[in-house]
Amino acid sequence: MICVIHAHPYPSRSSANRVLAETLRQTPNLDLRSLYDLYPDFDIDVAAEQGALQRARLIVWMHPVFWYSVPGLLKHWFDQVLTPGWAFGQGGDALRGKPCLWVATTGGDAQAYTEQGVHGRPFIDFAAPLEHTASFCGMLWQPPFIVHGAGRLDAEDLRRQAQLLLGRIEPWAQRKERAGAGELLP
Amino acid sequence: MICVIHAHPYPSRSSANRVLAETLRQTPNLDLRSLYDLYPDFDIDVAAEQGALQRARLIVWMHPVFWYSVPGLLKHWFDQVLTPGWAFGQGGDALRGKPCLWVATTGGDAQAYTEQGVHGRPFIDFAAPLEHTASFCGMLWQPPFIVHGAGRLDAEDLRRQAQLLLGRIEPWAQRKERAGAGELLP
Repeated sequence: MICVIHAHPYPSRSSANRVLAETLRQTPNLDLRSLYDLYPDFDIDVAAEQGALQRARLIVWMHPVFWYSVPGLLKHWFDQVLTPGWAFGQGGDALRGKPCLWVATTGGDAQAYTEQGVHGRPFIDFAAPLEHTASFCGMLWQPPFIVHGAGRLDAEDLRRQAQLLLGRIEPWAQRKERAGAGELLP
Repeated sequence: MICVIHAHPYPSRSSANRVLAETLRQTPNLDLRSLYDLYPDFDIDVAAEQGALQRARLIVWMHPVFWYSVPGLLKHWFDQVLTPGWAFGQGGDALRGKPCLWVATTGGDAQAYTEQGVHGRPFIDFAAPLEHTASFCGMLWQPPFIVHGAGRLDAEDLRRQAQLLLGRIEPWAQRKERAGAGELLP
């Protein structure tokens, strides 16, 4: 199972994230959890979320970038779901060894995330909190999948990005099928 | 007026943040806004928050560090309150020129935030999202006020940190008094 934690507060304003989500939704053995649909009142079902993560061989965090970070509900999800004794600390090894893929779309294009651009530094400088959240829980941080200038991509660009994303998660989708046939893979 | 946006989801478990907040609360001309008290259901009054910011000569973001970042409700506050046309973008100059001070307490001590420490890198590496949130709104980012190892400080340490913090905000507290006497300062 691949578990995709998807956080987009304004689906009607989404373009890139929506195409990525719709593509993923058609993937077998993939649990796409759209947090703003599941928890519009921010009242997260921690047991359900932890159960979904526990079943996952790959964990994906997917969202548009708001203020150089995750949307508020996804940050609240980190605070609520990644609990001591479960995700970290003594006995907290539920996520240990699971790969974690960050999928983010940004309004700004690649040039905006340069020293001369409006955001003043490379986008990867903003990854530190997420990368360390994953690694503090023993997850294996994967090279992030970032789509810049998301609002200006046309349908063809978006389809191409969705295919690239499918390529990135495919190794774990296949592993699940083999595991289903009796071979338990890490 | 100094506006302190304070976000601590577990006041009963707070030590350092509580002492800092109680000290600030006694400061004249200071609006301490404890988000988890004001908005336990995450339903932020955007107009009230924007009004408080508009009156402020200094904006303080104060919170314990959760997952290398702000607590979920403060991130939601960024998403909701810092709106286009108000905080940035065309006509969005409400916060332009206002100094912004980040006050954060961490469980990990200073050594934890080194290459050899449990968090693997200097704490300041995690400041990028906040610093750029402030500067994208035209605010003037101040050197952050960070208290490490907050849970292990004794009462005397905490009093000393609170006094240091008062020293950091004092210039703006004084400015307010002079402005009250008729002199409008930036």
